[in-house]
Amino acid sequence: MQRKLFCLLLLLVCLAYHSEGTKADDGYKLWQRYEQVQDQAKLQVYRQAINELIVQGNSPTLTVAHQELQTALSGLLGQTVPSSQQVTKQNVLVAGTPASSALVKNLGLTDRLKAVGNEGYLLQTSTKNGKNYTVIAANTDIGVLYGSYHFLRLLQTQQDISNLSIASAPKIKHRVLNHWDNLDRTVERGYSGFSLWDWHRLPGYIDQRYIDYARANASVGINGTVLTNVNANALVLTEDYLKKVAALADAFRPYGIKVYLTARFSAPIEIGGLKTADPLDPQVQAWWKKKSDEIYSFVPDFGGFLVKANSEGQPGPQNYGRNHADGANMLADAVADKGGIVMWRAFVYSEDEPDDRAKQAYNEFKPLDGTFRDNVLVQVKNGAIDFQPREPFHPLFGAMPKTPLMMEFQLTQEYLGQGTTLAYLSPMYKETLEADTYAKGKGSTVAKVVDGSLDNHKLTGIAGVANIGNDRNWTGHQFAQSNWYTFGRLAWDHALSSEQVADEWIKMTFTNDNKFVAPVKDMMMNSHEAIVNYMTPLGLHHIMGWSHHYGPGPWIKDKHRADWTSVYYHKADEKGIGFDRTKSGSNAVAQYFPPVAKQFGNVKKVPEKYLLWFHHVPWDHKVNSGRTLWNELAYRYSGGVDDVRQMQKTWDNQEGMIDQERFQHVKQLLTVQEQEAKWWRDACLLYFQTFSKRPIPQDLEKPAHTLEYYMSLDPKFVPGI
Amino acid sequence: MQRKLFCLLLLLVCLAYHSEGTKADDGYKLWQRYEQVQDQAKLQVYRQAINELIVQGNSPTLTVAHQELQTALSGLLGQTVPSSQQVTKQNVLVAGTPASSALVKNLGLTDRLKAVGNEGYLLQTSTKNGKNYTVIAANTDIGVLYGSYHFLRLLQTQQDISNLSIASAPKIKHRVLNHWDNLDRTVERGYSGFSLWDWHRLPGYIDQRYIDYARANASVGINGTVLTNVNANALVLTEDYLKKVAALADAFRPYGIKVYLTARFSAPIEIGGLKTADPLDPQVQAWWKKKSDEIYSFVPDFGGFLVKANSEGQPGPQNYGRNHADGANMLADAVADKGGIVMWRAFVYSEDEPDDRAKQAYNEFKPLDGTFRDNVLVQVKNGAIDFQPREPFHPLFGAMPKTPLMMEFQLTQEYLGQGTTLAYLSPMYKETLEADTYAKGKGSTVAKVVDGSLDNHKLTGIAGVANIGNDRNWTGHQFAQSNWYTFGRLAWDHALSSEQVADEWIKMTFTNDNKFVAPVKDMMMNSHEAIVNYMTPLGLHHIMGWSHHYGPGPWIKDKHRADWTSVYYHKADEKGIGFDRTKSGSNAVAQYFPPVAKQFGNVKKVPEKYLLWFHHVPWDHKVNSGRTLWNELAYRYSGGVDDVRQMQKTWDNQEGMIDQERFQHVKQLLTVQEQEAKWWRDACLLYFQTFSKRPIPQDLEKPAHTLEYYMSLDPKFVPGI
Repeated sequence: MQRKLFCLLLLLVCLAYHSEGTKADDGYKLWQRYEQVQDQAKLQVYRQAINELIVQGNSPTLTVAHQELQTALSGLLGQTVPSSQQVTKQNVLVAGTPASSALVKNLGLTDRLKAVGNEGYLLQTSTKNGKNYTVIAANTDIGVLYGSYHFLRLLQTQQDISNLSIASAPKIKHRVLNHWDNLDRTVERGYSGFSLWDWHRLPGYIDQRYIDYARANASVGINGTVLTNVNANALVLTEDYLKKVAALADAFRPYGIKVYLTARFSAPIEIGGLKTADPLDPQVQAWWKKKSDEIYSFVPDFGGFLVKANSEGQPGPQNYGRNHADGANMLADAVADKGGIVMWRAFVYSEDEPDDRAKQAYNEFKPLDGTFRDNVLVQVKNGAIDFQPREPFHPLFGAMPKTPLMMEFQLTQEYLGQGTTLAYLSPMYKETLEADTYAKGKGSTVAKVVDGSLDNHKLTGIAGVANIGNDRNWTGHQFAQSNWYTFGRLAWDHALSSEQVADEWIKMTFTNDNKFVAPVKDMMMNSHEAIVNYMTPLGLHHIMGWSHHYGPGPWIKDKHRADWTSVYYHKADEKGIGFDRTKSGSNAVAQYFPPVAKQFGNVKKVPEKYLLWFHHVPWDHKVNSGRTLWNELAYRYSGGVDDVRQMQKTWDNQEGMIDQERFQHVKQLLTVQEQEAKWWRDACLLYFQTFSKRPIPQDLEKPAHTLEYYMSLDPKFVPGI
Repeated sequence: MQRKLFCLLLLLVCLAYHSEGTKADDGYKLWQRYEQVQDQAKLQVYRQAINELIVQGNSPTLTVAHQELQTALSGLLGQTVPSSQQVTKQNVLVAGTPASSALVKNLGLTDRLKAVGNEGYLLQTSTKNGKNYTVIAANTDIGVLYGSYHFLRLLQTQQDISNLSIASAPKIKHRVLNHWDNLDRTVERGYSGFSLWDWHRLPGYIDQRYIDYARANASVGINGTVLTNVNANALVLTEDYLKKVAALADAFRPYGIKVYLTARFSAPIEIGGLKTADPLDPQVQAWWKKKSDEIYSFVPDFGGFLVKANSEGQPGPQNYGRNHADGANMLADAVADKGGIVMWRAFVYSEDEPDDRAKQAYNEFKPLDGTFRDNVLVQVKNGAIDFQPREPFHPLFGAMPKTPLMMEFQLTQEYLGQGTTLAYLSPMYKETLEADTYAKGKGSTVAKVVDGSLDNHKLTGIAGVANIGNDRNWTGHQFAQSNWYTFGRLAWDHALSSEQVADEWIKMTFTNDNKFVAPVKDMMMNSHEAIVNYMTPLGLHHIMGWSHHYGPGPWIKDKHRADWTSVYYHKADEKGIGFDRTKSGSNAVAQYFPPVAKQFGNVKKVPEKYLLWFHHVPWDHKVNSGRTLWNELAYRYSGGVDDVRQMQKTWDNQEGMIDQERFQHVKQLLTVQEQEAKWWRDACLLYFQTFSKRPIPQDLEKPAHTLEYYMSLDPKFVPGI
């Protein structure tokens, strides 16, 4: 009795220590916290199932897999799991490849392994010679690492591991983060502090953050990173910087992450001393080949180039009368022999103002289908404008069957509240991925275009514009971590549901307690729709503040390009509001395949969420709710604000369920978000009211200030420009 | 036997958990780690001495003192110390003021408390009614907080607490950090990431870092912070920003930290709509009064203004034919009724190139002695040029007896290797503080000028240009934390020795194990001299790279101002090297009091460390070592590099003594420092050799590259500009 008491006391000391630790949580550990499993029954089961850890092989990747398993198990199980090179216990966790591990080789997994390819893995429980094995097996070392993270996720989310038979392989080959990071460490559209890359102290100093960044990426299967901004600086291609790039590549390599760079198209002039950057000029071609070879001499597994050309003032092949394929192919040829790829962005628009910017990428790129080299991907944003809170899928998807199209999602919340807004973006990504292009009839989803299955492409890719900076919690807003997580998970398997991804993330990041998980998951699932409603309901788009894109700016007009203003997009007048993209207007709908074009082009059939994207609609038009368009707008804007208030209530109820630091962090930011939501609602309704001349419905909250007040607001030093 | 074994096992689990924690240390916790006391005997003594914690009173400051004691004791003792409002145990830790705490009031400390003033405290052990008390007593709540940190420091450094009788009060009133932080979060001369102040998310979002920043400052007695760059932006004085400033002030207030702002002298024009900023213009005076009142409406305990005027292009009173006193007094009048102060910088130089920039501050300010308002401090850098690796003390110290002079030290390592160099700066600070001005005869040290004792000033101050940024470890280099710590400790008590401060810091930051403390302390104590030797030995100064100040640039010449070049300062020619500041030259020595002037002005008596600061010396001049000046230069430069290599060895021996993360961090940076030291040595020796025409002594390492190579280096995007 006394003994038990004493031990209990000791345990309490441990627990007190432990809870001290959680008190001061700053979010740095992301979803890789490896806190001890809370469910005592599960904990006992896990402890019994893992008496010993065997990782045979000592490549850099297997070494980090081994370390990760050791560290994680020690945290999750609250006890050290001994490592061994041979089986000495009853219940053994084995990780390895048939090549590195005799144990794995002899477990009879050969056939099943064939199916998971170069990056996939098996998680399998089996019994042999009276011993129980939990096996993480793969054909390659990186597959073992991915499998290890999957296995750890099962423990982190308290899943049953007693009878595992999981095979997993990525649906998309290149799963890449795009960092819009400048060499001075500012980040274009970055709201999480400044760039992780401390160029000045590279190559000599490898920050632990680089390793932890790689660990986080590997844990969700991200296998590439473009280090630099698409608005590129050619200096990164000079020797001094390539040494720094190489140091990062060395740090990332064990985690299966390839490094890519943005190629400034005019680099041959700026750092090469040439007079032209014409892609058909042999000197230019030779320069890029030599430069690429130099890069490979520093980074033998260099991934290739990402290029923004002839877009928003960036140089490109059109400066020389050439087309995008000419430019992309030149770079592709320069890296082809080393296995490199070129990701050529379709986010382009010409110097001339178009009748509809939404049509430009399609108009420029569709005719080039079939003219790109085999190692070129055309990288297409999810929608045709620019990462708006909601866009219908980009009409290029399905329209270039001979060209692998790479998806570009934006994780950083340029148009989604930036650094102060809780936005779980999986539902938005899924909306695009699941959209049906009808390119080859019903079921020709965007996802199938991107994963190559629709047009039988082996070369596939997906990019996420990173939301990561040097803030202590990486992403500025604690919940923005979920979008980094989601991007990786969907890039690996776009069939995952938003709910499942949220469920995993919450459990790994906060707690498995369902009293927390369920309401917080609901809050996340509704968060994107709330933002759309208080910012750009019913298909409105591009009505944000000038230049910094922070806050509402539906009144923006008279700039040097009409298609950079707001009035160009909402086209509000006394009759109604919305961009007519039907036959009577720009006819952008015609870029979609007929079944889609027909639906989107019909004001009665278009999904209401895209109504004003495609149609100029009279103020008194009756919408699905039975309300007039004007009243519906007012209710949507107000409903968005109400939703944020509901999120606040939900969150406030969680106090005590998690550490105080992260609780307060989110609570404060939700307060700011509520203020910003009201700002959007009031500013937009007052502005649009000057056209509609109709009252805001009586039962809705009245604007707090005048339109003049909102128009006078001029926030300075907004981050991310 | 079995019971003991089981408990031992449980203990091991605890320890394993604990060591997991230390493995991943990123330095965020600074010297406030509160790890469990390592010495088991001491731990037992401490546990016995503190059975209960009583903090009576619930002001914000007492609340944070209470929290800090609770959290710290729980960590240090490895067990929770129960808090109570009355004595229930045998051995009690009591903290409070006579006003807040009946216990404290009745312990008979009244007389001794009188002596410690508004910020001081007593730490006292005593016995009453059979109970043993450890008392932290003060006249004010902030004194209690300071005393609490002192008490915790005793435990953190494993001191005897059985018989305490300590009285402590600060020697200097205003102990202030100067942040050279811009509103876009860049930091001028910042090498630790970017500004802590996330202006965009203020006032709504209070980052936990603000609280931890305040805790760290309070723990060393820093009681003020100037939030913004001396190269000021008037926008911070507008209402939008004042709301943000108020939020920071609210966060800092419980920790006794007042907020100050930099006042851009032309603000009345830029944000006030006036046509002039003439300090004698009644409209301008009224504008500043109104603006100050507005600031106080947001921040009732606003500290006042720091001003850089008529210096390096900043606007100031001289633009209107007025002098520095006119400018300072106008601002002083604007804040006087609220108790504000003005810190007016003496770091000035006119548009015209002087014969010797070192003389300018003295020439401009000495005549103004006695003309400043009572609430003005003139803030003087430690030396007359600009924070060089070593400077003789500024001749203004002692020269303005009627004016309180505030010391300005630089913590950020603008000229001391920036973000990659291990430099413990206490010896440098102490060298200045202990320098004898002879203003009132022998013993008239700079410290006595600054602490007011020499000229009987009540208003006293000391400023440190902060080295803090948003890097995870706050200061970029782990060891740069020691300079933040040192600044606070010396500001409180400049009589502390550098060894003692280093000893405290090492023990609190790393470990109390003397196998670590002793060699690391030696390394720190020698670090500044090593840098001086490989950068600017023997009194050389201002020979760094252009603009960014990174790396050597002794060849810098032909810029638009001669006194921004290097050749202006080293004056190397075929005869010799050094700046003649004696009678035969600029006669800057005459600005010192005669005994000093006589010593510095005599090439045979001047301390060798200042030789080339005051004298142009022939290459074959024999120095103390018996070597020629040229050979001595070569040996000094080489010796500095050797010292860094010795530091590397010392550090490498510590592997395993501390967590691997911080060990590797420092190890990597020492490798970079060794490369930079060689760069300085080789570049400077090769360059000066073009004048001396003498060989580098045979036994010294030869330069790795040619002078042309070093002159061609052109690092881009150096941080901190």
